[in-house]
Amino acid sequence: MSEYTIGLVATAVFAITGVLAVSEKGIDIFGAVVLAIVTAVGGGTVRDLILGVNVFYADDPTYIWVALVAALLAFWLPSFFTKTQQLLLYLDGLGCALFAIQAANKVIAQKFGLPIMPVMLAVITAIGGGLFRDVLAGRTNLLMTRQLYATPILLGTIFYMLMLGMIPESKIIELLSIAIIFLLRSAAIKWSLEMPDYLFLKTHD
Amino acid sequence: MSEYTIGLVATAVFAITGVLAVSEKGIDIFGAVVLAIVTAVGGGTVRDLILGVNVFYADDPTYIWVALVAALLAFWLPSFFTKTQQLLLYLDGLGCALFAIQAANKVIAQKFGLPIMPVMLAVITAIGGGLFRDVLAGRTNLLMTRQLYATPILLGTIFYMLMLGMIPESKIIELLSIAIIFLLRSAAIKWSLEMPDYLFLKTHD
Amino acid sequence: MSEYTIGLVATAVFAITGVLAVSEKGIDIFGAVVLAIVTAVGGGTVRDLILGVNVFYADDPTYIWVALVAALLAFWLPSFFTKTQQLLLYLDGLGCALFAIQAANKVIAQKFGLPIMPVMLAVITAIGGGLFRDVLAGRTNLLMTRQLYATPILLGTIFYMLMLGMIPESKIIELLSIAIIFLLRSAAIKWSLEMPDYLFLKTHD
Repeated sequence: MSEYTIGLVATAVFAITGVLAVSEKGIDIFGAVVLAIVTAVGGGTVRDLILGVNVFYADDPTYIWVALVAALLAFWLPSFFTKTQQLLLYLDGLGCALFAIQAANKVIAQKFGLPIMPVMLAVITAIGGGLFRDVLAGRTNLLMTRQLYATPILLGTIFYMLMLGMIPESKIIELLSIAIIFLLRSAAIKWSLEMPDYLFLKTHD
Repeated sequence: MSEYTIGLVATAVFAITGVLAVSEKGIDIFGAVVLAIVTAVGGGTVRDLILGVNVFYADDPTYIWVALVAALLAFWLPSFFTKTQQLLLYLDGLGCALFAIQAANKVIAQKFGLPIMPVMLAVITAIGGGLFRDVLAGRTNLLMTRQLYATPILLGTIFYMLMLGMIPESKIIELLSIAIIFLLRSAAIKWSLEMPDYLFLKTHD
Repeated sequence: MSEYTIGLVATAVFAITGVLAVSEKGIDIFGAVVLAIVTAVGGGTVRDLILGVNVFYADDPTYIWVALVAALLAFWLPSFFTKTQQLLLYLDGLGCALFAIQAANKVIAQKFGLPIMPVMLAVITAIGGGLFRDVLAGRTNLLMTRQLYATPILLGTIFYMLMLGMIPESKIIELLSIAIIFLLRSAAIKWSLEMPDYLFLKTHD
C-alpha cells in the first residue's frame, strides 16, 4: 500500500471513531457525518492554518469524501465496527504514525520554527481531530488518560528529528520512525500499557 | 429587506442566542458579549480561515458592532427575549438559511474543492458559531439532538449545488434554496419534528 | 525588564496554569505539555489567524520552548507552584495586560477593522488560551465566573483606544493602559472583587 492509500484508510478510521464516540449518547445521521469529518481532518486543518498554507483537502477533496463514506458506513453498521474495534485501534495507531511523520515533513519543507515546530505540529496533526471529537462529544479527552496514545507519536517524531539531523532526507529514517510509533502504540494496545507513576501527575487537595 | 439587512438581523439573533444560552448558569456582561460575538461570527470565521481569505468582518466590522449591541440588549432585557424565543427560533432559521447559501457562493467563487466543500463550509458557517457557543456554555451541543436543526441546512445546500449544476448562476435557485432551508426548519419548529429512528443512531452496551 | 522578557515570563505563567488546571484530575507528562503550550500560545494564535499574518512563534519559537520548559517544571514541582499560586495570579494578570496592549498595537498596525477589532483581538489574545485550557480540562470556563478577570482587560484596552484617538503613538499611554489593567486585576485578586449584581445576568426558570 502506498502512503497515500494508508492516509485514506487512516482518514476513514478517524471518521469511524468520530461516529462511535457518540453512538451511545445518540446522534442523527447528519451530526454523525459532521463529527466524523471534523475528527478526520481537524488535526491537519489546524496544522495547515498555523503553517499558513492551503488546507490539504483544498487540493484533494478525496479526504473529505472518504470521511463522509466512512461515517455513513459507521452509522448504518455500528455493530460491525464495534466488533472490529480492536482492529480499528491498530489502524488508528498506524494512521497517527503516518500523519505525524508526514506533518513533520511538511513543516520541515517550510523551514517553519525548526526544530520544535515539526514535532509540535506532528502531534497536533495526529491528535487534533481526536481532541475536537472528544470536546464535541462531551467526553474526557485523550490527553487526560494514562493510556499511551500521544506519547508514542511524540517519541517517534523526536527520534525522526534527531536522526534527520544526522542523516538528511533518508526514506529509511522516515519508515523507521513510522514503525516506532506504530509498534509502541500497538504494544500499548496489546498489553494495556499505561504511563508509569513518575510520568503521571495527580495532586490531592 | 436586502440580503445584507437579513444578514445583520441574523447576526443579532445569533448573538442573542449566545447570551440566552448561559443566562441560567449566570454570566457577567463582559462574558456575555464575548460569547455573543463568538456565536455570531464564529462559523463564518472558520469558513474564511479554511478558504484562506480575509475574515468577512475585516472588510466590514458592522457585523461585530451588531453582535455587540444585540448582546447588550439581551443582557439588559433577557425576559423580553425569552418571551420572544419562538420568534427568535424562526429568525435564527432564516439566518442559517441565508448564511449557508451565501457561504456556498463564496466557496464556489473560489473554485474550492467542488462540489463537496461548498456544502461542507455552508454547514460549518451556519452551525459553527452555535457549536462554539454550546462548547463554551458547557451544554450538550446541537449535533447531538434529534431536532431538525442542521439537516435542513444540509438538504437545502445539496439542492442548491445540484440545481447549479444544471442552471448556472440563477438568482431564483438561490432564493429557492434559502426558502427550502427556512421552510423545513420552520416546519420542524412548528411541529417539533424530529429525526426518524432509522436516521438516528443510539447503541446500547 | 523589557517587554519581551515580561512576555516570556507571562508565557511561562500561562503554561503553568495549564498544567495546574488538570493536576487534580490527573494527566501524564505529555498531555501536560500539550495543554501548557495550547494555553500559552492559543490566544495569540487565534489573533494571528484572524489577522491573516504568520503566527508569532513562526518567527520566534522561543515562546514554545519557554512554555515547554515551564510545563515540565510545573509537572515535576506542582506543590511549589501551588504554594506560589497567589504570585502566579498576579503574574498572569501582568501577562494579560501586556499581551492585550501588544495585540491592540499589532491590529492597529494592520489597520484592521478599527476601532473595534483591536479591542476584540486584544481580549481574544489575552483570554483565548485560558478558554482553550478550560474547555480541554473540562472545567467551567473563565467567562462564566463573577471574578473580575476579563473585565480589566476590556476596560484597559478601551481606555487605550480612546487615548490613542487623542494622543497618537505615545509610549506613555501604552504603559498607562498596561498599568490600569494590571492594577484593576490586582485589586480584584487582593480583595476578591466580583462583578456587581447589575452587571451579572442570572435568570431563573
